[in-house]
Amino acid sequence: MTKLEAKPASLVTSANALLRPRLLAPGPVETDPRTMLTLAKPQIHHRTPEAREIVLEARARLSALLGAPEWEPLILTSSGTGAFEAALVSLVPDGANVLSASAGKFGERWADMAHSLGYAVTRLEKPWGEALDPAEVADAARGQAALLITHSETSTGALHDLARIAEQAKRANPDLLILVDAVTSYAVAELRPAEWQLDAVISGSQKGVGGPPGLGFVFLSPSSVERLGANPRRYYFDLKKEVASQRKGETAQTPAINLVEGLLTSTERLVAVPLETLWAEKAKLNAALLAAGNALGCRPFASRVSPAVAALVPPVAVKDVVGALKALGARAVAGQAPHQDALFRVSTMGYFDRYDTLGMAGLLEDAFANLGRPVERGVAVAAAWKALNA
Amino acid sequence: MTKLEAKPASLVTSANALLRPRLLAPGPVETDPRTMLTLAKPQIHHRTPEAREIVLEARARLSALLGAPEWEPLILTSSGTGAFEAALVSLVPDGANVLSASAGKFGERWADMAHSLGYAVTRLEKPWGEALDPAEVADAARGQAALLITHSETSTGALHDLARIAEQAKRANPDLLILVDAVTSYAVAELRPAEWQLDAVISGSQKGVGGPPGLGFVFLSPSSVERLGANPRRYYFDLKKEVASQRKGETAQTPAINLVEGLLTSTERLVAVPLETLWAEKAKLNAALLAAGNALGCRPFASRVSPAVAALVPPVAVKDVVGALKALGARAVAGQAPHQDALFRVSTMGYFDRYDTLGMAGLLEDAFANLGRPVERGVAVAAAWKALNA
Repeated sequence: MTKLEAKPASLVTSANALLRPRLLAPGPVETDPRTMLTLAKPQIHHRTPEAREIVLEARARLSALLGAPEWEPLILTSSGTGAFEAALVSLVPDGANVLSASAGKFGERWADMAHSLGYAVTRLEKPWGEALDPAEVADAARGQAALLITHSETSTGALHDLARIAEQAKRANPDLLILVDAVTSYAVAELRPAEWQLDAVISGSQKGVGGPPGLGFVFLSPSSVERLGANPRRYYFDLKKEVASQRKGETAQTPAINLVEGLLTSTERLVAVPLETLWAEKAKLNAALLAAGNALGCRPFASRVSPAVAALVPPVAVKDVVGALKALGARAVAGQAPHQDALFRVSTMGYFDRYDTLGMAGLLEDAFANLGRPVERGVAVAAAWKALNA
Repeated sequence: MTKLEAKPASLVTSANALLRPRLLAPGPVETDPRTMLTLAKPQIHHRTPEAREIVLEARARLSALLGAPEWEPLILTSSGTGAFEAALVSLVPDGANVLSASAGKFGERWADMAHSLGYAVTRLEKPWGEALDPAEVADAARGQAALLITHSETSTGALHDLARIAEQAKRANPDLLILVDAVTSYAVAELRPAEWQLDAVISGSQKGVGGPPGLGFVFLSPSSVERLGANPRRYYFDLKKEVASQRKGETAQTPAINLVEGLLTSTERLVAVPLETLWAEKAKLNAALLAAGNALGCRPFASRVSPAVAALVPPVAVKDVVGALKALGARAVAGQAPHQDALFRVSTMGYFDRYDTLGMAGLLEDAFANLGRPVERGVAVAAAWKALNA
């Protein structure tokens, strides 16, 4: 008979080729394969009863994960940045004074956005990785129409103390609108929009809710809904139209309805537990990565750590760490410019549970061992497991 | 506005609801999600050039994973049992004497099958979990037309010493045909069909090659191919017809062509490394589970351990262990009757790598801790990680 040869298969002797791929970035995140199958269902039309039911149920899920039943959940077909723009232009009058308080890439982005859109922007910028000081923010908020702030700063791994910042800022300026980038804190970190007197909360589909990118979420307080007005300078991001439509299960624009239905799958586990349980578990998973990193000689880049991402300063070159992880099939990311050489980032935000997290600690330990670091075998895994059982 | 409520979502306080499902059974196994997407591609017809290319490439992959280029790989749309029957009736003359050597469920099944099919069956049965003795098998093989033997006994976790058994049996009886159930050893354990002078090797799609169930594989030695004759008592399992068809990329019967194409995806990683690397890695993963089990007071059920499955005798009731794992989202299985209360079984055969295996050790440790066992936290995870780094 003819000899059969396996196709290309350039044989490599390392068992690393048997490792499966893992997406460890702080978004887009690893997704539940069932979510992907939901996306692949036969295409439905978005102006139908079944689509309306999907939109209404997705809104209910998003609302449940916000923990503020009186707030309005809006689903936009855009990235989180689009959703932030929608909130900004729909709530803050043209040309108004806005304060952007930031200590990282995403905070800076909102200042740039507001500036581009014609707002008079005051920037309160702290070094990347620092936590914003509530008193300082409150002081700067006087005379401002709005405060733009990032809750979990994905570029640095910092979680700003939004409860205290909002409380002091509102006390200093009761008319202040607080617009919160909760892109990586929503459904991950403690977030109490009603209790903290926030006005708008923004997130996206490829982070805590574990879907693919493509949807932005805007959550509006009841008073923010009242404030919505027509704005002649925008059309697609008209949240007044969206509120009217989405309450009926419609959307003002053609929605990425497959992604919306995917949310029903990806949030199924998340809404099965109280928010406090979800937050505690996510914090524990991230703490396990930090503990593993610590055992390997890394320190957290941020002074106040977000559960959304372990941003670690390694004792070796960042690109070597990212490369060593990549050689093991795992996609981590470096810091964002200009801090790309200072830190690397790994996240358990997506479809990862405690056993996956334990595996990630093993990955980190292997990567550092492969870099020739004097790693005592077992330390990172043991530290992570201990943190997971704390 | 109307308050939105998340749909049913009976809230449970335990974070266990956030765990993802895991299929730890020794087949069907966890599959690569990409394999499932391959199955879901638009349906093709099986009498087309593209189907022929798929069949030929699948045969090449199967051949590469057998490591015997001169052997004939045949793909049947059946379970592994169907494939075993096909080999038996195609190679062994009606009514012939056959020896079935067994020490577990699957070995016993081949004796039952041969008896049903009208063969004169001699049963060499050892207690479940024991390893077959080569000299004893060789002695019993005198005067027999064929030896039916299971390489990796999935019901007990035993790996029989097929190299020595085959060598001694062929020496005792050079005309003996050796038909090997390699359902869970193929692409998992060291298997050298040409060197060991085997005549037929049988496996299936839902084990080492990591696909869903539905395909049986028969590998025939060159001399076995020569021996194939028409047999008036069977039609579907006519391997002579299959050889003629499959060499052209056809199949004599309608094939489960989607499953065949799925093989191309699920074997992609496996053929990227030398067989020795694959076998060594699979053995290491299973050794890690055994080490974790040992740290938790379990002992292996089998005297000679198969890398396909960790069959463990726990210090508590088996059904409690399986239940505790199920509460953590993981599907393990008990022993098969009549040993259902003696052991439980977990396997890394499927789409699991070393980091998944580490997570499985965490799962086992959690399960035993949840059962109230006096488990020192960390012991199972540390033992597994040590085994993975041995």
